[in-house]
Amino acid sequence: MAEPANPDAGVGGLVRVRVDLGYDGTDFAGWARQPDQRTVQGVLEDVVRRHPPGAGAPRSLVVAGRTDAGVHARGQVAHLDTPPLPTEDRPPLADLDRLRGRWNRMLPRDVRVHRLSVAPDGFDARFSALRRRYSYRVADPLALADPLRRRDTLWHARALDVDGMSRAALALLGEHDFAAFCRRREGATTVRTLIRLDWSRDSDGVAVATIEADAFCHNMVRALMGALLAVGDGRRDQGWPAEVLTAATRLPDVHVVAAHGLSLDEVTYPDVDALAVRAEQTRRLRRLTR
Amino acid sequence: MAEPANPDAGVGGLVRVRVDLGYDGTDFAGWARQPDQRTVQGVLEDVVRRHPPGAGAPRSLVVAGRTDAGVHARGQVAHLDTPPLPTEDRPPLADLDRLRGRWNRMLPRDVRVHRLSVAPDGFDARFSALRRRYSYRVADPLALADPLRRRDTLWHARALDVDGMSRAALALLGEHDFAAFCRRREGATTVRTLIRLDWSRDSDGVAVATIEADAFCHNMVRALMGALLAVGDGRRDQGWPAEVLTAATRLPDVHVVAAHGLSLDEVTYPDVDALAVRAEQTRRLRRLTR
Repeated sequence: MAEPANPDAGVGGLVRVRVDLGYDGTDFAGWARQPDQRTVQGVLEDVVRRHPPGAGAPRSLVVAGRTDAGVHARGQVAHLDTPPLPTEDRPPLADLDRLRGRWNRMLPRDVRVHRLSVAPDGFDARFSALRRRYSYRVADPLALADPLRRRDTLWHARALDVDGMSRAALALLGEHDFAAFCRRREGATTVRTLIRLDWSRDSDGVAVATIEADAFCHNMVRALMGALLAVGDGRRDQGWPAEVLTAATRLPDVHVVAAHGLSLDEVTYPDVDALAVRAEQTRRLRRLTR
Repeated sequence: MAEPANPDAGVGGLVRVRVDLGYDGTDFAGWARQPDQRTVQGVLEDVVRRHPPGAGAPRSLVVAGRTDAGVHARGQVAHLDTPPLPTEDRPPLADLDRLRGRWNRMLPRDVRVHRLSVAPDGFDARFSALRRRYSYRVADPLALADPLRRRDTLWHARALDVDGMSRAALALLGEHDFAAFCRRREGATTVRTLIRLDWSRDSDGVAVATIEADAFCHNMVRALMGALLAVGDGRRDQGWPAEVLTAATRLPDVHVVAAHGLSLDEVTYPDVDALAVRAEQTRRLRRLTR
């Protein structure tokens, strides 16, 4: 047997493969496999099972961000663990780029695998991620409503004050309990570190929010967007999102905006040396806080 | 009766309304109305007929660029002539922006009207246009194939030399007989002035061509793209597109590329004073050369 490229990957000398991908979430019931639903994980695992990277069936995909129905991804990251082939047959993970081509030819056009690579030691798509970055696109009356972008852009009937939304967002930055913006899950922490949240207009005048955090709890990005849009179109004043945050319980008047404006654009991982340490830290933290 | 805002518009004191619009061409059989086909003109005229800008039915839409099936538009321009209402009822063209809102609520989401305005004297969407600018998007293996942009981006299997394509295009600039790149139409001139044709990569690495001319004959943009892609991926050398141009007859080995990478991005008109002169020049020129 070949030496496993990733000794941390688990039992049986499995090799861990990192999968970088993007998808148009419009026609998917989200990332996570569900019976009788078209999901990104389901579509991708069907192709992986027919063309596995190694000998034998790989395990389930583990993903950095479990996107909801209708949410898109430009920079999603997943991993899978697979038994390698014996070296005497061919290299353990022969020509991952050719395999990627084969997968893309079999995949529907609303999913693309951008890259396949052998993951470095200690890499875990979910637990070693340092940060997730999302964008949210809104075309208001000041922007060009481009029909070609209607699947990833919310059309908002009232004009938005983009600078006002960025100023209102400043009070949300840093480590806070985001319970007011999260769907409650028994026993799970809602403390997160919001690293970046600001708005700008692109060349079509479309208002684009950039949102980055160590991680997000469920509905958090879309609830933050709902609170800021209320500021941007004048229904609420600039201090309101910070008041909501302080309330620390889920408020019914925070609107969770439509999924289709949202895209997971980037997942950031630490340098190779720090990977295993980061994954262990994250796992321990989640255990402690449950 | 109110004074017609545009005395050049034709008989009966009609008012000419300029319509700026965009569409996702994917599900349309092109711009021009055809029986039993879903066309942009057909969809738009149905809404215009139900909510005309003035009293009575407006005439047919006249468009700057009659796009083919599958071709998109971000900056299409059309006009329509409509009888105004008597001023004693309400202003002749009351609140065109509200009318635009109503049209957009009735239109399918793959067409958006960006602006309605009373056209200046002498304006003709087709004949007074000075220039049409198109873009063509190609994602090669060096680019990120974003599933969200699959409807307006050609996925090309071979890597492209973008600078090489721009250099090859230099020899095509200026006034030439583009017969080699045009579908023949009996009696019509194929002499056009190519003002701009160059390539660059956007932030995703997608190769984007910008093509501008006084006007284009049928298939011309897509045939030019086919010739340049052959240079870009190494099937032809840089001098080949200029040789094709010189041949001056339609060559079977010039590939007309797929429609869905193409979008009409902008139509440029002269200043108000020069409008009528330009329209008359164009009409005369087309008459002379037929």
